[in-house]
Amino acid sequence: MIPQQIIARKRDGEALGLEELHDFLTAYLDGAVGDDQMAAFLMAVYFNGLAPAELDTLVTLMIISGEMLERRGDWPGPRVDKHSTGGVGDKTSLVVAPLAAEMGMVVPMMSGRGLGHTGGTLDKLESIPGFRTRVPLDEFNRVLRRVGCAMIGQTEEIAPLDRRLYALRDVTATVPSLPLITASIMSKKLAEGLDGLVLDVKVGRGAFLSRLEDARELARAMVNVGARRGLSVTAVLSAMDQPLGRTIGNALEVREALECLSGDGPGDFRDLCVELGAEMAVAGGLAAGVEEARSRAADTLAGGGPLERFLRLAVAQGGALDPSRSDFGLPTAPRTAVVTAEEGGIVAAIDPLALGYGVIALGGGRTRQDQEIDPRVGFVLQVDVGDRVARGDPLAVVHSATADGLATGTGAVREAVGLAAGDAPAPLPLILERVAG
Amino acid sequence: MIPQQIIARKRDGEALGLEELHDFLTAYLDGAVGDDQMAAFLMAVYFNGLAPAELDTLVTLMIISGEMLERRGDWPGPRVDKHSTGGVGDKTSLVVAPLAAEMGMVVPMMSGRGLGHTGGTLDKLESIPGFRTRVPLDEFNRVLRRVGCAMIGQTEEIAPLDRRLYALRDVTATVPSLPLITASIMSKKLAEGLDGLVLDVKVGRGAFLSRLEDARELARAMVNVGARRGLSVTAVLSAMDQPLGRTIGNALEVREALECLSGDGPGDFRDLCVELGAEMAVAGGLAAGVEEARSRAADTLAGGGPLERFLRLAVAQGGALDPSRSDFGLPTAPRTAVVTAEEGGIVAAIDPLALGYGVIALGGGRTRQDQEIDPRVGFVLQVDVGDRVARGDPLAVVHSATADGLATGTGAVREAVGLAAGDAPAPLPLILERVAG
Repeated sequence: MIPQQIIARKRDGEALGLEELHDFLTAYLDGAVGDDQMAAFLMAVYFNGLAPAELDTLVTLMIISGEMLERRGDWPGPRVDKHSTGGVGDKTSLVVAPLAAEMGMVVPMMSGRGLGHTGGTLDKLESIPGFRTRVPLDEFNRVLRRVGCAMIGQTEEIAPLDRRLYALRDVTATVPSLPLITASIMSKKLAEGLDGLVLDVKVGRGAFLSRLEDARELARAMVNVGARRGLSVTAVLSAMDQPLGRTIGNALEVREALECLSGDGPGDFRDLCVELGAEMAVAGGLAAGVEEARSRAADTLAGGGPLERFLRLAVAQGGALDPSRSDFGLPTAPRTAVVTAEEGGIVAAIDPLALGYGVIALGGGRTRQDQEIDPRVGFVLQVDVGDRVARGDPLAVVHSATADGLATGTGAVREAVGLAAGDAPAPLPLILERVAG
Repeated sequence: MIPQQIIARKRDGEALGLEELHDFLTAYLDGAVGDDQMAAFLMAVYFNGLAPAELDTLVTLMIISGEMLERRGDWPGPRVDKHSTGGVGDKTSLVVAPLAAEMGMVVPMMSGRGLGHTGGTLDKLESIPGFRTRVPLDEFNRVLRRVGCAMIGQTEEIAPLDRRLYALRDVTATVPSLPLITASIMSKKLAEGLDGLVLDVKVGRGAFLSRLEDARELARAMVNVGARRGLSVTAVLSAMDQPLGRTIGNALEVREALECLSGDGPGDFRDLCVELGAEMAVAGGLAAGVEEARSRAADTLAGGGPLERFLRLAVAQGGALDPSRSDFGLPTAPRTAVVTAEEGGIVAAIDPLALGYGVIALGGGRTRQDQEIDPRVGFVLQVDVGDRVARGDPLAVVHSATADGLATGTGAVREAVGLAAGDAPAPLPLILERVAG
C-alpha cells in the first residue's frame, strides 16, 4: 500500500480497492499515514466523493477503531435514537429522548457540542447545574437501564477514528462533504447498537445544508448505510429557515424544553418533537404507521410522563432542577433588554444565522473548540414569522452578562427580524420530506 | 487570517485576496499553519488552480523565503539558464551549459535529481569520480566566474519554501498540478538572478505531461510568470516519445554527452543541444534571431571549445575525467549483455517509460528519496525508431552490476522495443512548438 497512490486514485476519480482503502485507514490509525496525507485524501474526497462500498469501508473502520455500546442482557424495549444535523434553537433531543423512553423505547443518546452558529445538546444539558455529560460507559448503561434514556457526549471509546478525522476536517476545510458527514454520523450511531434511528436533517439558511437536494442526498446516503447493515433508519427533512421555538441560548432552551414537556411552549417545536417521537416508534417497531404513532406520541407528551422521566434523568446524571420554580432553577443572565419594533409591519423573516452568531457574540457559543461558554445568555423571541407588529411592540428579549452584550444582542435581533409591509407570508412548512429505507 | 477560510475559498473556486494568501504562506513558514492544512490547500489547488496573481504571490514567497544568487559585480555576459521538465536519456544540460558559456553567456545552473522514471542532471554529474554537486554559494560563484558555467544542486539557501512544499506534494499526490509545477520551477530559476531562461518542456509517454495541450499550458504559464518579472523566457516543447540519444543510465549518458561535445553522438541529441543553445543566445540578447543563433551554436559546438570548457568545469568542481580514454575514466558496469531481435521487422517504437523504469530496476535510479544509486548501469540502444532489423541483430546493450540485472534489463529492452511488419513509420519531429513571451 503506497499512500500517495491511493490519494492519487481518489484525486483522479478512480474507484479504490476496498482492501487498499482499509489498509490506508489502518495505516492512519497506526501513524504510518500522516495527517498531511489524510488531509489531502479528505480534500480529494470533498471533490470526488465516496462510492457506497468505500463509504461502508470507512464507516466500518470508524466503528471498529473503538468499542460498541453493550447491548447484551434483557432490555425493556427496542433501542432507538434520534440525531439532528444541527440548527438554531433546536432543543428537540431534550424532549424526544424522554418521550421515546416513555413510549417504551430505550434511548442511548450520544450528542455533540455547538458547532459554528448551531447549538449543541451537550452545552444545553450542561447549563443544568451539576449535570454530567461525561460519564463512564458502565454508568451510562446503568442510567439507561433505570431511566430508559441517557444522554452523554461522545466518549473516547466510541469511534476514535471519527474523532481524529473530525478534528482534522475542522482545520482543513473538509467538513462540508456529504459522504464524510454521513460516515461521521452513522459510525457513531451504529456504534450505539441500535434497532432504529431517526435523523432530523435540517435544511435552510440556519442549517449546514441550505439546498433541499443536498439534504435529500445526505438523507438518502445515511438511510442506505443503515439499510446495508440492517438498521432501520428514517430521515425527516425539516425546515431551518427560522429558529425552532422561541428561545436561542443554552439555559433558555432547556427552560423551553421543560415547558414543552409540561404541555406548554411553541407549537412548531412541540409538533417536531411529536413527529420525531412518532418516527422513532415506527423505526423501533412499536407502531405500524406514522399516523397512529403520532397520536400516541402527542398523548404521551400531554400525559406528563416524559417530564417526570427527564427530571429523573437529570438527577441520575447529577443535575439539579427545581420544577416548582418558573425558571426550574436554571441559571439566569443578570441583564435583559427588550428590543422593540422601530416601525410597524409584518414579520417577514427571522434569520436563524444572525441569532445563532448572536449567541456566540454574547459568549454563549464558541469560536474555538476549547472556549468556556456562558450558559445564561441568548434570545427569547416575542414574535413569529407572519405576526403583525406596531411600532414599539416587543420583538425579542436579550439575555446578557454585560451591558455591552445587550447592545450587541439588540443589534443581532434587529439584523434578524425582517419587517415588511403588505400581507403576512404563507406559513413555512416545518416537515419538508421523509426518506425511509 | 483563519487558515480554514482560505482553504475553503480555494476549495470553492473563489479568488483569494493576495494579502491573505501571503499571510497563509508566511504562517506556514512560521509553523502556525500545519502540513495538514497545507496538504488540503494544495489538493484544492490541484482541482481549482491558481489565478495568475495568486501564482505570482506564491512564486514571490518562495523566492524571498531564501536567498537569491549574487549577481553584483562585473560579469562577462548575460546570465542565462536552461531547464528541462524531465525525460528519459535527457543529458542536454551537460552539453548546453558549456556550449552557452562558450557562446558568451554566464550559466548558473542549479539542477535536480532523478524523479520517477526520469533521470536527473545531478545524478549524472555525480557519476564523474570526485565531482561535487554540493558546494557553498561562494565557491559556486568562483567556478561560475572562472569557467562561465557552474552546475550544482538546489542549495538549502535557495527557495526553502519550495523545497518544503515539494516534499509535501511528493507524499500527498499533489505533484502533477500545472500551477504548482510552474511555481516550483520558476521560483528557483528566478532566484538565480537571470537575464534569460530557456525551458525544455517535454511532451509524450516518457515525460510527466503526455498531452500537448497540457505542455502548452505549462509553457505559457512559466513564460508569463517570467514576463511579469521582466525575465525573457522561451519554452521549447520537445518530443519525449522515445529516449533522447542512445544511452539511458548515468555514467553512460555522461559518456554520450562527452561524445557529443567531441563532435560525435546521435543526431537527435545534438540537434536539441544546438536548438537550446541557440534559444539561450536569443533569450540572453546575444543573437537577433533563432536561425542565426542556431548556426552559431552548431559552429561553436563543432569547434571543440565547449568540450574543453566542460572538462575545466569538472576539474573546478573536483571531478576527474580522462579525455584520452574512450570511457573518459567513467565507472563502467562489470557485466554487459547484448539483447538481439527475436524476429525481423521495423522498429516501430522505443518506449522511454520501460527503459526509465528499467534503469531503476538495475539500481541506477530511486524508488525512495534517500536511496543510493549505481551510476554504472543502464542501456545503450543499437537501433533508432524506423530502423529495419533482422533476426539476431542487436537491439541494445544492457550494463548491469549483477547477472540477475542482465535478465531484468533484457526484459526491459524487449518490453521497450516494438517491432512491426510493414514500412518504416514517419520520423517523429523532435521540436514540436516554441512559446515565447
